[in-house]
Amino acid sequence: MHSFLLIGQSNMAGRGFQRDVAPIYNENIKVLKNGKWQTMWEPIHNDRPNAGIGPSASFAATWCLKNPEETIGLIPSAEGGSSLDDWSIDGLLFEHAILQAKLAQKTSKIAGILWHQGESDCFPDKVKNYKENFSLIIATLREELNILHIPIIIGGLGDYLTKGMYGQYFSLYQEINNELKSFANAHADCFYVTAAGLTSNPDGIHIDAISQRLFGIRYFEAFLRKESIFTAPENEENILKMINERPFTQTEKIELLNIEFSKGNLELEDYQKKLSLLKQNTN
Amino acid sequence: MHSFLLIGQSNMAGRGFQRDVAPIYNENIKVLKNGKWQTMWEPIHNDRPNAGIGPSASFAATWCLKNPEETIGLIPSAEGGSSLDDWSIDGLLFEHAILQAKLAQKTSKIAGILWHQGESDCFPDKVKNYKENFSLIIATLREELNILHIPIIIGGLGDYLTKGMYGQYFSLYQEINNELKSFANAHADCFYVTAAGLTSNPDGIHIDAISQRLFGIRYFEAFLRKESIFTAPENEENILKMINERPFTQTEKIELLNIEFSKGNLELEDYQKKLSLLKQNTN
Repeated sequence: MHSFLLIGQSNMAGRGFQRDVAPIYNENIKVLKNGKWQTMWEPIHNDRPNAGIGPSASFAATWCLKNPEETIGLIPSAEGGSSLDDWSIDGLLFEHAILQAKLAQKTSKIAGILWHQGESDCFPDKVKNYKENFSLIIATLREELNILHIPIIIGGLGDYLTKGMYGQYFSLYQEINNELKSFANAHADCFYVTAAGLTSNPDGIHIDAISQRLFGIRYFEAFLRKESIFTAPENEENILKMINERPFTQTEKIELLNIEFSKGNLELEDYQKKLSLLKQNTN
Repeated sequence: MHSFLLIGQSNMAGRGFQRDVAPIYNENIKVLKNGKWQTMWEPIHNDRPNAGIGPSASFAATWCLKNPEETIGLIPSAEGGSSLDDWSIDGLLFEHAILQAKLAQKTSKIAGILWHQGESDCFPDKVKNYKENFSLIIATLREELNILHIPIIIGGLGDYLTKGMYGQYFSLYQEINNELKSFANAHADCFYVTAAGLTSNPDGIHIDAISQRLFGIRYFEAFLRKESIFTAPENEENILKMINERPFTQTEKIELLNIEFSKGNLELEDYQKKLSLLKQNTN
């Protein structure tokens, strides 16, 4: 199985509202929990109580469109609010991500890293050292996990950032994007993905759920083409439509029914009736 | 800070319905996420999409009643559906739990382990080897984490198990309880906690939310008294009442408001009005 390490801050962890998008639930998409693979559900991250939709579910769903016979695993390790300093190679976040990735490597092959971070670094003294510090983080990740040549996909910060209620803190967001582009340009197997046109939650900080779906498709486009994506792919809405229109398999329908029952959203009798109907359809 | 490792299967992870109990949210209760401590929220575990109320939140809340000036940290590592074999010392669950505990030890002192497991082992060939296998797991945990003498609190299986829709699979649950009691009796600093009188979700497998609150209080009672608890403490309902009646601090009210807003459950204007009111009250 191919797996992908998810790191960065809240927009990689995901804060989009689940109610705004069709669910992605696909038995070929797995998530690492307690060192083992489970069928992925959203939110994928659990770093904060407000975790929601991030880019990796639609990344994985697009991957599945191209690789219908294979399974993909996601390794959630992003942390809300984290600055690049918080990701220093002697820090807890880095150590945790490495441990998760090494556990995942026991049962999968890491095929890429999805990175999104920078909102916490939109200050002059942070921008100045961003590329140098980021280079060390990426080089150490590659070395520690022995993944010297896999693609690292680096998302840009959204243009909405300066317009929201906390806009004053993000006036340098374009400089962070320039650092990220420049880093990707200077390093083999590193690709930048534009956040152009993406919109945010009412907080003006977090990418909204629909935009996260599109962002994940762009991440996949960069992964597939092995090049940076500076303008939104023309077909991204079509790909999202294909993802949304994929019918659930019988197995998925039964699992989703089990989840609803075990969350207390369905009476026992109703559950048993629906389960029996689903199983009849399988035979 | 004192921390507690949470291991076992689904009833330690928690499957009680959140809507059935008052929330526990206390700035002195932390949870380990990405190697760092965050203010705890429920569900504490995230092993499955149906994770819900387990025993550890009320354990921690009772601990806070006794230690009002201190903070407590929870280390979630329980895995739904796991058998004792799944917890073997060369397996992924064990390795993951050790890694989490070691990360926690960088910033806290592990003061106890809460264990609940056995539903997946109610079969003759599993019961037979349970105590021996469990002894090796506990001895290895103690050694690897250098926690030779901290209390290990071991919850029993619920009496409801044989009465539900899957009751046939649990006919040997009392034999598992006997093994757990016998293990606790034979090992220093190991204590058994009765599940007597606890009730379940409609699935007949998972302890319901209110019972989990009481169970956590019993776990704390065993931890405090350093002895096994074979009958429900008379004052457990009173302690639960004290937990439920604890008013939120200003900090907690603001954090809870922030969470609601960032989950999209509150309009921007409404959020700002409520936030400003809360902050006025602080001054």
